[in-house]
Amino acid sequence: MPGNSFGTLFKLTTFGESHGAAIGGIIDGCPAGLKIDFDFVQAELSRRKPGQSHITTQRKEEDTLEFLSGIFEGITTGTPIAFLVRNEDQKPKDYSHLKENYRPSHADFTYDKKYGIRDYRGGGRSSARETIARVVAGAIAKLILKEKNITVESFVKQVGKIKLDKNFNELDLSKTESNIVRCPDEKTAQEMISYIEEIKILGDTVGGVIQCVIKNAPVGLGEPVFDKLHARLGYAMLGINAVKGFELGSGFNSINFKGSEMNDVFLSSSRDDSTGVNLSSSKDDLTKGETNATLRQAQSDKQVKTKTNNSGGIQGGISNGMPVFFNVAFKPVATIMQKQTSINSRGEEITLEGKGRHDPCVLPRAVPIVEAMAALVMVDFLLLSRTDKLF
Amino acid sequence: MPGNSFGTLFKLTTFGESHGAAIGGIIDGCPAGLKIDFDFVQAELSRRKPGQSHITTQRKEEDTLEFLSGIFEGITTGTPIAFLVRNEDQKPKDYSHLKENYRPSHADFTYDKKYGIRDYRGGGRSSARETIARVVAGAIAKLILKEKNITVESFVKQVGKIKLDKNFNELDLSKTESNIVRCPDEKTAQEMISYIEEIKILGDTVGGVIQCVIKNAPVGLGEPVFDKLHARLGYAMLGINAVKGFELGSGFNSINFKGSEMNDVFLSSSRDDSTGVNLSSSKDDLTKGETNATLRQAQSDKQVKTKTNNSGGIQGGISNGMPVFFNVAFKPVATIMQKQTSINSRGEEITLEGKGRHDPCVLPRAVPIVEAMAALVMVDFLLLSRTDKLF
Amino acid sequence: MPGNSFGTLFKLTTFGESHGAAIGGIIDGCPAGLKIDFDFVQAELSRRKPGQSHITTQRKEEDTLEFLSGIFEGITTGTPIAFLVRNEDQKPKDYSHLKENYRPSHADFTYDKKYGIRDYRGGGRSSARETIARVVAGAIAKLILKEKNITVESFVKQVGKIKLDKNFNELDLSKTESNIVRCPDEKTAQEMISYIEEIKILGDTVGGVIQCVIKNAPVGLGEPVFDKLHARLGYAMLGINAVKGFELGSGFNSINFKGSEMNDVFLSSSRDDSTGVNLSSSKDDLTKGETNATLRQAQSDKQVKTKTNNSGGIQGGISNGMPVFFNVAFKPVATIMQKQTSINSRGEEITLEGKGRHDPCVLPRAVPIVEAMAALVMVDFLLLSRTDKLF
Amino acid sequence: MPGNSFGTLFKLTTFGESHGAAIGGIIDGCPAGLKIDFDFVQAELSRRKPGQSHITTQRKEEDTLEFLSGIFEGITTGTPIAFLVRNEDQKPKDYSHLKENYRPSHADFTYDKKYGIRDYRGGGRSSARETIARVVAGAIAKLILKEKNITVESFVKQVGKIKLDKNFNELDLSKTESNIVRCPDEKTAQEMISYIEEIKILGDTVGGVIQCVIKNAPVGLGEPVFDKLHARLGYAMLGINAVKGFELGSGFNSINFKGSEMNDVFLSSSRDDSTGVNLSSSKDDLTKGETNATLRQAQSDKQVKTKTNNSGGIQGGISNGMPVFFNVAFKPVATIMQKQTSINSRGEEITLEGKGRHDPCVLPRAVPIVEAMAALVMVDFLLLSRTDKLF
Repeated sequence: MPGNSFGTLFKLTTFGESHGAAIGGIIDGCPAGLKIDFDFVQAELSRRKPGQSHITTQRKEEDTLEFLSGIFEGITTGTPIAFLVRNEDQKPKDYSHLKENYRPSHADFTYDKKYGIRDYRGGGRSSARETIARVVAGAIAKLILKEKNITVESFVKQVGKIKLDKNFNELDLSKTESNIVRCPDEKTAQEMISYIEEIKILGDTVGGVIQCVIKNAPVGLGEPVFDKLHARLGYAMLGINAVKGFELGSGFNSINFKGSEMNDVFLSSSRDDSTGVNLSSSKDDLTKGETNATLRQAQSDKQVKTKTNNSGGIQGGISNGMPVFFNVAFKPVATIMQKQTSINSRGEEITLEGKGRHDPCVLPRAVPIVEAMAALVMVDFLLLSRTDKLF
Repeated sequence: MPGNSFGTLFKLTTFGESHGAAIGGIIDGCPAGLKIDFDFVQAELSRRKPGQSHITTQRKEEDTLEFLSGIFEGITTGTPIAFLVRNEDQKPKDYSHLKENYRPSHADFTYDKKYGIRDYRGGGRSSARETIARVVAGAIAKLILKEKNITVESFVKQVGKIKLDKNFNELDLSKTESNIVRCPDEKTAQEMISYIEEIKILGDTVGGVIQCVIKNAPVGLGEPVFDKLHARLGYAMLGINAVKGFELGSGFNSINFKGSEMNDVFLSSSRDDSTGVNLSSSKDDLTKGETNATLRQAQSDKQVKTKTNNSGGIQGGISNGMPVFFNVAFKPVATIMQKQTSINSRGEEITLEGKGRHDPCVLPRAVPIVEAMAALVMVDFLLLSRTDKLF
Repeated sequence: MPGNSFGTLFKLTTFGESHGAAIGGIIDGCPAGLKIDFDFVQAELSRRKPGQSHITTQRKEEDTLEFLSGIFEGITTGTPIAFLVRNEDQKPKDYSHLKENYRPSHADFTYDKKYGIRDYRGGGRSSARETIARVVAGAIAKLILKEKNITVESFVKQVGKIKLDKNFNELDLSKTESNIVRCPDEKTAQEMISYIEEIKILGDTVGGVIQCVIKNAPVGLGEPVFDKLHARLGYAMLGINAVKGFELGSGFNSINFKGSEMNDVFLSSSRDDSTGVNLSSSKDDLTKGETNATLRQAQSDKQVKTKTNNSGGIQGGISNGMPVFFNVAFKPVATIMQKQTSINSRGEEITLEGKGRHDPCVLPRAVPIVEAMAALVMVDFLLLSRTDKLF
Repeated sequence: MPGNSFGTLFKLTTFGESHGAAIGGIIDGCPAGLKIDFDFVQAELSRRKPGQSHITTQRKEEDTLEFLSGIFEGITTGTPIAFLVRNEDQKPKDYSHLKENYRPSHADFTYDKKYGIRDYRGGGRSSARETIARVVAGAIAKLILKEKNITVESFVKQVGKIKLDKNFNELDLSKTESNIVRCPDEKTAQEMISYIEEIKILGDTVGGVIQCVIKNAPVGLGEPVFDKLHARLGYAMLGINAVKGFELGSGFNSINFKGSEMNDVFLSSSRDDSTGVNLSSSKDDLTKGETNATLRQAQSDKQVKTKTNNSGGIQGGISNGMPVFFNVAFKPVATIMQKQTSINSRGEEITLEGKGRHDPCVLPRAVPIVEAMAALVMVDFLLLSRTDKLF
């Protein structure tokens, strides 16, 4: 409960400060018998690594992962999986000038007041470097989901006002990794990259939207009433640095429609007239509903299809077998390379110089983090669902 | 963890189906020594009661509350507070025609598949009647917050496309209860009411946005890294029926600004040039940033002010002393008074007749529910913050 | 965490004071599809009911149970099961003379200091009447265990110095209910009853030992490292009023043997020379090891047998397929019918008169409580064990 | 919940196998502002270290502790404290002969069946080497308790049949560390040592009893009803390897007395005739009640004294201000240096050779482990007690 654990049956506890000895975590509750694909885990980590392209921070970190327990001869044993990444970039330089300064829209002030002390080197615990642990655990969660053919895919849908205005089912998500901004539409990707380059030159930052799509989730994940599937997904996403908003399915755009337009009609087993066009998809709006035109998911007698998917794959808080999808809004990060006025711990006005190595836009690197947190939620509910019924 | 508990130190566990014997809950962890204002608790319950106006469902329920434990001579004893509301409206009518039918965008199908059985009478556990327990617990949470002068106020900000386009600090929130739609701006309220009346005649439903504003929260609430204050608030809101989105502070609108525009500049103790106009407030957008022009909150040496409040009162996941505010998006509820095509449990196509007593727009009645859930989150963190420091 | 919940996947939260409106609880996490045998549940409740014989308190309580939710047409639905028993015996008499007095070895003083307030009527929350909720939940847990052929049986092994000096496998546990003291050996039972009658005449009380035996538990229950099966069993037992000690298998008597004597030798599949006589069984000692001579439990290829069962069916914190058994020590309850010196809330010396209706020996009524708590532990681990392995 | 976390507000999660890369843990919830005495923490670790005397195992381990996070400039920051000890003794030798063998009364068989896989090198996760993490966390917990003047002291009370037959208040507990067996009575200590030497020569093992005494705990720790202080203490102790029993205060010996003899009479503020002689202390019994003759603890108006302390400092599950004390029974450990018959994973009979480096008696090294677990429980309740009352 003190805030550094996530999940119940598949539980991640993380530790580490930006410039401390290491970042890492413990996964408790990983079922025994999972073969760990170490290359995959390291590859996931590399997706969030700084310095991976010219539009991300140039901080060099190798992020070499070490597993300390819970895996024997490459297989999980059911005991806790501990892991860490050393902070190689720990320079003996003097951070003491930051000690008393509160940067605007950072956690400096709030940590100081909450705890009476903070590790001010590079943001300490509030640094997004902490997400290393999430990505490692998320990678392991993905390996479990893979056994059930469940996929978790995210992509950059919007950067500033540059928006990919297509439904996910109209996109080839395998192309997300084909460019440095992680947008599966090449043309939009290039626009985003150009825009981020401009922002970088200004020493400024920009936010955007990441969409996450989860396919092949079985019917029945999510727990009424407080632990609805999307409540946990939202909780997971809102715990990521710089996230300001979350919406499931048709989300905020639901407001623009009537119930008769929004309801997702079930298709009888004898018909399949899914049009692939959702009513809301004709609107020019950021967060409109997405449709699963393909409907190729229905695999068992348990599953039915709905004509539209405004529900985002979740009804009554429980997955219904359609793709689960949601949007996550990231603000522009607070660290800018411009002069700013602020205060110090004595309430005196100061001027902050913008310098160092930072991300003009965190979204490309946040894509694997969104996926990781979503995977943690899904695995937790997948395990929990084993106890839904007596037999 | 099975989903019917919320909170850690101030923990609510709820029970009850729409047409079962009763709805209720247990609050475990309420500190001893709180005087219960029973009239206030019942009044909160009346705010969510059906049949309170012609724009809500006409289901008649008295919602008479009984406390069973944990309160002695009007004061909390530190032991669990159990309470219940009997379901007076239990009619011996035959619901069996609903047994096999899956209503679109309801929980019928998912409950059936998850559990293999469901109480189909009036939606069973998935009915919003369950929120009675939340409102009761929230009322007690509010009484605790009141001791610290913390207020939690919600209002209807948007119904369909009718939007109250003002910052909360430009509004007199005490007027929220002055009209049946719970919008503090009388002119907008009348438009909303007229629109809901139209929708009702159509037998249709409409969604909207509720904004919640929490004032006077002390600096330091929220737990890094997973239990950020807004992560828990979002989790709480997304667990309410029909909620599809959550955004803190400038939320999704953050995307439209650069970091240099979004950062909330701290004001030094010698200056107070808060303009009351946030950069984002010039935009015509649903979810724009709100500004706390008044800044009358700073009460102690612990507190500082920021010129704008795009952060929504939370930085690094921890309250910074500025007002906490967020928007909650509700879809139009799924129950409409129109004919709809659907399927039954055998996958056969059926036609559903729209009949009964339902809400064309749940937002007015959801206002106290949003407040209740927010109050639960705040009390939990308020108690937890007592352990932040050694002394 | 505030203390009134027990279990994780099968979680009971209880409420109620001795002379408040009701005693009850909520079970969250009961799997769907369990047929509730209401007669069995009520029968379990009757086993703990006061006034059931002349050696228990004569307080008359009908303990009529009402289920409020979670059961539909006699079957559990997977939603929370709430239940309550009204306190019929609430007399409008004046308890105010107890308000300021602290009874020796009761919870009066500690509750007052912890909370600053207490419901002093009949002990309030500290009354053993609270165990009603445990017995109800335990009965439902037993119904689940029954589906797996797992039995949980307790009996009174010792009252004062009168001890049943036999291993459980030498006893016919079906005879436990054949006498009012719940000791399966008729001769010893009669001695115990006579002794309790003597104690009752003296206005005094006496303690003893209850032994609990769990048969047919599958191999694999219990979680390393902190949630060892016996750690949770001990935790469960020590939360019962008046319990002062817990020991698994050979328990405290293990001290009297060497490792070479205590080790439970596995029997190979080709041999079965289990003697039925444990080394420790030749000792005249309260808490000696028990042997499972019968060894009829081995049902699947998963199970092996051990020659002795000093381990009490648990090795490394995990059930090994042999019977799990443990002893629970109850002190003589503090409420005696004699004059006692004590103090009041001002620290002044007072004299307490012994009067009212109380149990000279709680053990017979504690038998179903011990079983109930053990059943809660076993069901929790049974559900949790479904997530041990990937497949 | 998967079993490797302990505590709620001060929560330890541990990891590591005996011959894996490292043993360690994360403490989440340690309040900010605690100065870490690193020498003290290392010293505690040295108390449990193997090879510290000729009566313990000769396995050489330096147990060098590294902190990875949560401490800045020697002070806790409120963020998670991660730490690890590398397993220096990892030899590249072949353990594969153990792979298929099940040692009697070890966890080999149960781990294999539960998980379908186990790290068989040196017992893997079931090795007591895991307690390193407990001792580190316990040391930090002790530093917090020290700020409140609360002490946690354990000592070896019995080895085999050699028993220290004195109440703790008759002993000088500062002498516990003066001999290698950790018994504060020098004469008894020498007898114990001689006995362990004999057992060692036999290649056998022996168990015993550790008593733990907690002084200066404030009134009010412990949570009704399931989380009684002694229920949590028992839970903590029973999670230690080889522990078979737990008893609070007069424990199992309570059975030998009547309620009128066992009740702990409160002393009025005007009298202090505490005799220092508890009725039960005249009995020659292993687990008799202890008396706190000194009664020097009463420090504030909150505290009262009782004439005897059969309750073990806890009434109604809540500390009453008197010393909390309890006994923990350890069986002789299963690893003996003698030939034993057993089975392998195919159910075939095998003969195990006794060889290697092992403890003839673990009690001396278990003393700091008992203290550590007790300290964790006490700190958790100490923090939790801050939320008992509204103000």
